[in-house]
Amino acid sequence: MDFRELSWSGSEKKVARRAYDAAVEVALARIMAEFKDKASAVATPAEMWEVEDYLRGKRREFDDMFDYRYSQLLFVFPHLIQAGYLNESALAGLAQDKLESIRETLAFFAKRSVQA
Amino acid sequence: MDFRELSWSGSEKKVARRAYDAAVEVALARIMAEFKDKASAVATPAEMWEVEDYLRGKRREFDDMFDYRYSQLLFVFPHLIQAGYLNESALAGLAQDKLESIRETLAFFAKRSVQA
Repeated sequence: MDFRELSWSGSEKKVARRAYDAAVEVALARIMAEFKDKASAVATPAEMWEVEDYLRGKRREFDDMFDYRYSQLLFVFPHLIQAGYLNESALAGLAQDKLESIRETLAFFAKRSVQA
Repeated sequence: MDFRELSWSGSEKKVARRAYDAAVEVALARIMAEFKDKASAVATPAEMWEVEDYLRGKRREFDDMFDYRYSQLLFVFPHLIQAGYLNESALAGLAQDKLESIRETLAFFAKRSVQA
């Protein structure tokens, strides 16, 4: 299946946008909580620079993970589910072929992580 | 005066090392206090990423400013004094020509900052 050729109906776009935006909120809240914990525990300069490294890594990870293009969403959603930023139930309303694709990708991730 | 040709006696090296190490401590303590203030005030993701930018800038500034090579110290010390990380009095024990060079550089900085 070539994701670029899939069409998204108006109501699917609404579902996707809402799920995506909610995942953004969850991800940022989680990073922020972790950042606050780390920052308040800093006692040495080395630990302070580790917070910089942590933030840089998280920013990169966030930018890599969040990409709202319809050509990418069927890769993006499984990653967000796997990372715990999104529940599959938030995607109810997408067409069956899209949901199946997302489940297949998740199954592939699960298999890959067992093998790793 | 070519700084690379200046010789540093054993006792001058001790003075320089002690002053330098003290300035490192002052600089890091100041950055850390500022970091802690900023981190605990963070309330939004945008502010969190600003802390990353702050730390990156400070790390770069720190690495630029602190350079313990005898060929560089007569540039380094005036910068540390100007930044408030070092008191000129901590350099007592250096030869007169070195102290004069440091004062001239400081005077140059002062003139430059008035013109700027």
